[in-house]
Amino acid sequence: MSDLLGSPHHDGSPLYTPGPPPGIGDTVPVRVWVPSTPGKPADETEVYLRRWRDAEPVVTRATLDTCDGTGAWFTAEVTCDHQLNHYRFLLAGDGYRWLNASGVWDRDVADAYDFRISTADPPPDWIADQIVYQVFPDRFARSAPHETPGWADPAAWDDDVDEREHHSARQWYGGDLDGIAAHLDVLDDLSATTLYMTPVFTAGSVHRYDAASFDHVDQALGGDEALARLLTAAHARGIRVVGDLTLNHTGSTHEWFICAQADLDRPCVGFYLFRSHPHDYVSWWNIPSLPKLNHTSSHLRHELYEGPGSVVARWLDFGLDGWRIDVANMVGRLGPTDVAHEVARTVRATMAAHHRDAWLLAEAGHDAARDGDIDGDGWHGTMDYSGFTRPVWTWLNSPAAAAGMQYLGLPVAIPRLGGQALVATMREIHAGAPWRSWLASTLHLDSHDTPRFRTVTGGGDSGHADAAGAGRAAHLVGLALQMTMPGVPSIFCGDELGMTGRSGEHSRTPYPWDGNRADLARIDAPTLAAYRTWTALRRNLVALRRGSLRFVDAGHDSVTYLREHPDQRVLVHVARGPHGPVSLPLSGLGLSSAAQASAAVPDDPTSGSIVASGVADDLALAASGPGAAVWVLE
Amino acid sequence: MSDLLGSPHHDGSPLYTPGPPPGIGDTVPVRVWVPSTPGKPADETEVYLRRWRDAEPVVTRATLDTCDGTGAWFTAEVTCDHQLNHYRFLLAGDGYRWLNASGVWDRDVADAYDFRISTADPPPDWIADQIVYQVFPDRFARSAPHETPGWADPAAWDDDVDEREHHSARQWYGGDLDGIAAHLDVLDDLSATTLYMTPVFTAGSVHRYDAASFDHVDQALGGDEALARLLTAAHARGIRVVGDLTLNHTGSTHEWFICAQADLDRPCVGFYLFRSHPHDYVSWWNIPSLPKLNHTSSHLRHELYEGPGSVVARWLDFGLDGWRIDVANMVGRLGPTDVAHEVARTVRATMAAHHRDAWLLAEAGHDAARDGDIDGDGWHGTMDYSGFTRPVWTWLNSPAAAAGMQYLGLPVAIPRLGGQALVATMREIHAGAPWRSWLASTLHLDSHDTPRFRTVTGGGDSGHADAAGAGRAAHLVGLALQMTMPGVPSIFCGDELGMTGRSGEHSRTPYPWDGNRADLARIDAPTLAAYRTWTALRRNLVALRRGSLRFVDAGHDSVTYLREHPDQRVLVHVARGPHGPVSLPLSGLGLSSAAQASAAVPDDPTSGSIVASGVADDLALAASGPGAAVWVLE
Repeated sequence: MSDLLGSPHHDGSPLYTPGPPPGIGDTVPVRVWVPSTPGKPADETEVYLRRWRDAEPVVTRATLDTCDGTGAWFTAEVTCDHQLNHYRFLLAGDGYRWLNASGVWDRDVADAYDFRISTADPPPDWIADQIVYQVFPDRFARSAPHETPGWADPAAWDDDVDEREHHSARQWYGGDLDGIAAHLDVLDDLSATTLYMTPVFTAGSVHRYDAASFDHVDQALGGDEALARLLTAAHARGIRVVGDLTLNHTGSTHEWFICAQADLDRPCVGFYLFRSHPHDYVSWWNIPSLPKLNHTSSHLRHELYEGPGSVVARWLDFGLDGWRIDVANMVGRLGPTDVAHEVARTVRATMAAHHRDAWLLAEAGHDAARDGDIDGDGWHGTMDYSGFTRPVWTWLNSPAAAAGMQYLGLPVAIPRLGGQALVATMREIHAGAPWRSWLASTLHLDSHDTPRFRTVTGGGDSGHADAAGAGRAAHLVGLALQMTMPGVPSIFCGDELGMTGRSGEHSRTPYPWDGNRADLARIDAPTLAAYRTWTALRRNLVALRRGSLRFVDAGHDSVTYLREHPDQRVLVHVARGPHGPVSLPLSGLGLSSAAQASAAVPDDPTSGSIVASGVADDLALAASGPGAAVWVLE
Repeated sequence: MSDLLGSPHHDGSPLYTPGPPPGIGDTVPVRVWVPSTPGKPADETEVYLRRWRDAEPVVTRATLDTCDGTGAWFTAEVTCDHQLNHYRFLLAGDGYRWLNASGVWDRDVADAYDFRISTADPPPDWIADQIVYQVFPDRFARSAPHETPGWADPAAWDDDVDEREHHSARQWYGGDLDGIAAHLDVLDDLSATTLYMTPVFTAGSVHRYDAASFDHVDQALGGDEALARLLTAAHARGIRVVGDLTLNHTGSTHEWFICAQADLDRPCVGFYLFRSHPHDYVSWWNIPSLPKLNHTSSHLRHELYEGPGSVVARWLDFGLDGWRIDVANMVGRLGPTDVAHEVARTVRATMAAHHRDAWLLAEAGHDAARDGDIDGDGWHGTMDYSGFTRPVWTWLNSPAAAAGMQYLGLPVAIPRLGGQALVATMREIHAGAPWRSWLASTLHLDSHDTPRFRTVTGGGDSGHADAAGAGRAAHLVGLALQMTMPGVPSIFCGDELGMTGRSGEHSRTPYPWDGNRADLARIDAPTLAAYRTWTALRRNLVALRRGSLRFVDAGHDSVTYLREHPDQRVLVHVARGPHGPVSLPLSGLGLSSAAQASAAVPDDPTSGSIVASGVADDLALAASGPGAAVWVLE
């Protein structure tokens, strides 16, 4: 990893892949930056493009565009013969190196991590500029009392979360959609322009992943009218709203399932997977209350997502701006049956027909790029647990906290790994899908399904905010990663207050209100200040939203990367602890010696520990403790 | 790589995956060997299996079977829910490590290189025991004069090959099938039990990849009757015969293409891909004489490979024991159209219906595992250029020879890389497909499409044998790799004589006969002696044919690996040049201190340089020059 600075680079960002989204038959210019290294002028490198045509490699020479003392730009062309077009670069003349999406290799490599360009319709362009604020509707804000649903155990807003199985799903705090609408200033405050809500349809639990209907919003949330009011209020502020749809299963109280169990002769019987009617059926993780849907049923497909009258289409008509698909990885898959890609393509097509601007986001707890699931014509992107959350957790966890916590589904404690592992895992996971799929994916430090990141970093597990700030430093280093990486940062409501949580259930502790504002006595104010700073920074710097991701250094305790955009270049240095100087010759950054790096977040509490020196010629970055800093390079 | 010896291991071989071929719903026991390392007894490791079920990870704990001072065996079970079942292992307790098919990783990794078990019908069992002898029929042996084909420029047997474009394909030496039948003792002499012949159908060139018909063997080769005689003679000796079929294209003189060009109303028009009838059509690499076939035509599919009357079936009925499919990677692929898997599955199904024992081998010049092409229900295996030939060339080439030679389709000289690169590339390429697919794949040092390996290793480029033996040592090191690795060794006719060749065309120099035997004055006798020794060794040692592949050391100039089988364990050490001692504690090999390692090839000319010392306790392997040695461990 020590040679990252001297490594050639390419990715799908506009500086390196400048053309418009291609169609089949188009050619796409692809650019490679080759740094000069001592004794090896970059323009002496021979650069070749290797692409596939009908699964046969085709090799063409890249042309030298420009060269100066710091390095050289080369350009080649990818002819898009296919929907998914694979390519990589061969660099010869100063050794033998392949450059693929996972990095630089001085030996032959498999094709698995070739760069990929898709000719499918691209994800809507607006997505890349978003910051998402994720709300679990029962727990954010309550506008008024509602009638208690039959399944609910009412709780007072300040009660502790009851984590016990069979209790947690019924513990009803009564947050609602008008409550969210009344507090959209929370999103504005964090530069968040997309609201993502976990399910709102009528259901049998507070999480509502057990839908009883897809036709109506739960009355306990205010019903359809409340959603309409929320959409109006959000859209008036320029905030988009993404819903949550369980395509994999419904609740056993769903009207379709009740019908299916009642009468073997009804079409809805085919919506489910009965082993023996009516009581033996396939369900999600064998949980009887969550019967799995059968996507080989054309009737189901039409009801749910195929065509203008479907659930997917109707609620977009109603005003939603996109869908997050629950356990998308399992949808349409059961043993030897696998219609997953057909499902995703059909949902996408329905959305494209009427709502070209809607976002289709897939949940996947593990490598979402497996099996081509986000290669371009299905889900736009994924909740990037594998390529972001997991590596960040391995780098920034508190070993004491990790000792008591499973590692996102693995029966072992979260390991504490170095920055080299962070970078290698991020590159490998992201190498599995086209660049643009990651720009339409979300970056999470945590979610409603995980412990709070603040607990992972050592902030305790009270459920409430970490008033002592014990995990603050590492939390804010994670925040810096989240706000400076490609992909859409998604803030789980309350993270910005320093809230803690030891499990997904526990992380759903209600937001601490004091009238219309977060209760300052119950939050960690420096954390909120840092969230405001970093989210504003991301909003203001196009390179953070749309630039390249070029790692230039990875040490045990620090990671340094460039985000390069035609309009702006930004250097990010993130440290989890004190470390000695990391030396970055300006020429290695492609800068002349006259360049200036101006600190972009001088007033952020996390940046105090980072010391940059010798900017005139070399940049030397050291840290006295955890921190992060960003410079705009000019 | 230095920790290979201390790394846990698993693969698809019977010691590690002992069960019979599974079907859907079956469970497969999978075993992991965890070596003890100083201070870390193996039985303190927690071993978990992570598999996929409907694309969702499922994690189960492996059980400890046995443990001694050297290490521990763990067993878990893979439930085969799908046709292709992915899994990997997590090892905790002495760190955090993933074990997947590409190796051991101390960070999170993508799913691309998970181990894979297929529930499709397995490749025929006999394949794993074969050594293949590859013959280019025009150039091996001539039984009698034949009428000169219209396209041919007759050459005398000892004429030099004319490499000029448009000349080489017409240079006709007149080798024939009865010639091959008369010299099957050459195969016996090399323990070769499968004969693979490049195409024999009537065609318009000596290579015959431009078939004029699939109905008859070329009269210039002796016609159908000669093939019948060859099959009878081969089968009488226990030799199987594999044919070569161009599913991707025919010649422009093919009866189907003539029909298609002549009349727009004939069904055969649909066999091809006309842009504008009759003269503008898709062809292989835009070579007009090789019009590409259209596999979306059901009529074509039935003629060629679907059902009992098809070309594929009829010639198996005639007596062939399998097919090698030319440019299989491109078959059924053209731009956005991709029916490649359907084609492969259909060919396989036709073969399975009547000829369950026939071998279906796919040519693929590059990563054959890409896109699941050899995942289990299509091609049985591939010509393993990517996972064997290429890495071997990078390790054993003569830099002087490589300087003048392209690297198998890349416009750069073959790089000279270390043993670490050899191992890493082999592991990565082979991680892309199930273990059994590689046992049904062929290992080539070269072929009719490449320079001769002897030329790559510095043996010159006369076309004839390297009489000086200049490239001999490295050639025989390559031979040792070929004969001790999993997969089916395939000897290109003449390699065993030390023949050279600077290109595919040039490598087709005729076999030098002296009556019924190779002309001793025109061959390199020590090379032939080594081929006899190493091929016999492979025939005699089941572990070399069917054992695991567990790398235990990889240095710049040497590679050491175990081939482990329930009935036998073999240690292989291969050196490309002199190197100091590689120390292998016996416990690391899973051996007690009382173990003995007996040299299996004491009389082989390549083994002289290898010095093994201190066998009683530690094994220390050094080399005074290029060499290879094999020990049976008891």
